[in-house]
Amino acid sequence: MTRTWQDIAKAKQAALSDSIPPEWRVPTDIMPPDSQLDVTGFPRDSGFFTKDELKYTTAKIPEILQQIHCKAWKAVDVAQAFSKRAAKTGKPIGPLHGLPVSLKDNFNIIGKDSTLGFVSWVGVPATYNTVLVDVLLKAGAVLYVKTNVPTAMMIAESVNNTFGRTVNPLNRKLTSGGSSGGESALIAFGGSVLGVGTDIGGSLRIPAACTGIFTLRPSFGRFPTANAKSGLAGQEAVNSVNGPMARTLDDIEFFAKNVVNSEPWKLDPKCLPISWRPVDVGRKLRLGVIWNDGIVVPTPPVRRALKHAVEKLQEASHEIVDWEPELHQEAMDLLVSPTTPFASVEHGKFKHVGYTGVFNILDYSAVSFPSGIYADSELDKAETGIKTLSQMDAQIQAEYNAGAVHGMPVSLQLVASRLEEEKAVAMTRVVLEGLGVAA
Amino acid sequence: MTRTWQDIAKAKQAALSDSIPPEWRVPTDIMPPDSQLDVTGFPRDSGFFTKDELKYTTAKIPEILQQIHCKAWKAVDVAQAFSKRAAKTGKPIGPLHGLPVSLKDNFNIIGKDSTLGFVSWVGVPATYNTVLVDVLLKAGAVLYVKTNVPTAMMIAESVNNTFGRTVNPLNRKLTSGGSSGGESALIAFGGSVLGVGTDIGGSLRIPAACTGIFTLRPSFGRFPTANAKSGLAGQEAVNSVNGPMARTLDDIEFFAKNVVNSEPWKLDPKCLPISWRPVDVGRKLRLGVIWNDGIVVPTPPVRRALKHAVEKLQEASHEIVDWEPELHQEAMDLLVSPTTPFASVEHGKFKHVGYTGVFNILDYSAVSFPSGIYADSELDKAETGIKTLSQMDAQIQAEYNAGAVHGMPVSLQLVASRLEEEKAVAMTRVVLEGLGVAA
Repeated sequence: MTRTWQDIAKAKQAALSDSIPPEWRVPTDIMPPDSQLDVTGFPRDSGFFTKDELKYTTAKIPEILQQIHCKAWKAVDVAQAFSKRAAKTGKPIGPLHGLPVSLKDNFNIIGKDSTLGFVSWVGVPATYNTVLVDVLLKAGAVLYVKTNVPTAMMIAESVNNTFGRTVNPLNRKLTSGGSSGGESALIAFGGSVLGVGTDIGGSLRIPAACTGIFTLRPSFGRFPTANAKSGLAGQEAVNSVNGPMARTLDDIEFFAKNVVNSEPWKLDPKCLPISWRPVDVGRKLRLGVIWNDGIVVPTPPVRRALKHAVEKLQEASHEIVDWEPELHQEAMDLLVSPTTPFASVEHGKFKHVGYTGVFNILDYSAVSFPSGIYADSELDKAETGIKTLSQMDAQIQAEYNAGAVHGMPVSLQLVASRLEEEKAVAMTRVVLEGLGVAA
Repeated sequence: MTRTWQDIAKAKQAALSDSIPPEWRVPTDIMPPDSQLDVTGFPRDSGFFTKDELKYTTAKIPEILQQIHCKAWKAVDVAQAFSKRAAKTGKPIGPLHGLPVSLKDNFNIIGKDSTLGFVSWVGVPATYNTVLVDVLLKAGAVLYVKTNVPTAMMIAESVNNTFGRTVNPLNRKLTSGGSSGGESALIAFGGSVLGVGTDIGGSLRIPAACTGIFTLRPSFGRFPTANAKSGLAGQEAVNSVNGPMARTLDDIEFFAKNVVNSEPWKLDPKCLPISWRPVDVGRKLRLGVIWNDGIVVPTPPVRRALKHAVEKLQEASHEIVDWEPELHQEAMDLLVSPTTPFASVEHGKFKHVGYTGVFNILDYSAVSFPSGIYADSELDKAETGIKTLSQMDAQIQAEYNAGAVHGMPVSLQLVASRLEEEKAVAMTRVVLEGLGVAA
């Protein structure tokens, strides 16, 4: 008898569940009720995690590494706290020694499936590692979990027929974005301190924005991409890139610097031999603001966040220019724009990757960062009679539900030129100072 | 009546001839006889050039620039001496101020044809400049001549139906190579001190080798390539690159450094933002030697030059490894190989671009340099009974004529990794020291 796709998916989900030791599964009686939408407090409040486990999983990367390297913490304990999996021990073998790093499903690891959500790829374990996996292992990272994606990684929510849907731990009725939405959910929940996703149209930035974390979308060639699994093999008109996702900008830079300085171009011929360069971006920036992209007006909380950011940056004496396409030859330090039209959005309603996708076409470097503004059902009511720019815009405005997204963090995007990752990070730091948001 | 291609070519040649002032055309009575094969001595010996003109055209680039900048020489005189064309005057406007630079035909200059040898492109002047043209003009270079190519630039000799055939000034029965063979002939004749060609399978290195001059084939993205004319528009599997051709390695580095440091990535989005980096290559190198490529054995003078180079480098305590494909993961500083199977070769007989083309596929950086060895009809006799590697090899060995190439300089190729142009140049310098050849 032929197995249906439902049979295969069910068996895969059972195998995944079985791979988690029974003592690490949350007992039914303490599981948050379905009515509890924000579950990010669960680890802290449930009593299910020990004091040490909470200490490890809430520490910042430099502290984790310092404690491991001075042997106050054991790498195995830290990794278990994050993952309930065993970690390598011994002397530090690299700058990430003992640091648990989570990976999006499409990073191949020998012996593990990379299904990309396709049922047909269940039970087809990778026979080689993605180059970045080798780089991270050599740096001493502990790889302990792979995270969910949409089928083929080609939509902006993380749902597929193999594993089902990933929800947003800040509000389970909302999407954690996609395609790196398993990563964003895990990091926002505190189950990972540093994750790696990929981006071909916004797949790092959209999930980061939906959960209020940081990410860096590098230009192609900056981080190694060889031997990752593609959902559209052979499509090279726009190259997929990978990048870090984390709760702080410092952690983003930590990843970028260490990966680039490992000289990954010796392992991936498409990777560019450019070291992580010191940059001096100055204290006063000239920013072009993209209020909307001419196709979709951002929803009210995003409009408010962008306006707030611009006001704060003007107060901090940065020069602000309303960017229009005809200004493309003018020298700007960077562009600031919405990351997506949404704070986050109800499952199934994410639309329009235009704000991120344009910078994949241009291959520019971009950071998505939390703006410090949170959606507010009172302040961000739907406006009526607003001029719509397109059919899609009309639909997004009609579907906007101020109550549904109340309390969600709003992110914005900073864009530098091609291969200016150092500048993008450094300028984000300056902007965060202006906004009074922690880096 | 429809004009035939012969009519169009004849008219174009006449127009080209008319563009040269009568007083700069060589009178018939002092023209070297057809029997004189090496015409490189003509400028010095004919009395046709003034003492000053000879001084200008035999000086090295730093001297030319210094004399112009301190106003001892006039840029217009230097440019006239090279070109019989007027040059800009005034204060130095850039690091190449007053330096005449010759360009291969496919660099677009507003108002000038870029025929690539096609009769159908006669009378179709460019409406925009190639980005590199703008870069050179902004640096103060004087563009005074465009040089011949094979039709579509896709063979290794420079012959086409519009302008005819370019010959080798060192021996007019031999080819100056191609496709940048107009450049190599002009530079070897002393009609240019610095030229720019292009390379998609060896088109910089082959003509440089046929005339005993230097060139650098950079990796794609190092020098700007935008808006040059292609013979195969749309073909991007292997990208064409451009690079300098000159009589010294110093001049090659001078061009590379100044072009890269002009930040051409701000003008060409495919150009990489990598400054010209200081490198320390060490005094002892580990070189892999490619004695032959498995398809064609180099002709006797090239075999002798490579053997000589290896012996000298061993004497200078460099480490030499006979490179085989299975060694590709071993760390070498660089590879040394023939640039072509030939010193040069009779017109119509150039074959096999394998020694250069493989590094276009790999997009590696490579230098072709004169080895200090000259073909010698006594030392480099054709060998009989030598095992041939392929049909093409058999044909090349059968056609080899030791007498025809007697006295021609033999060049070799040094290859570094992708985007290691600084290293390629610096290591060539170390190798030249070992060989006792001037840089």
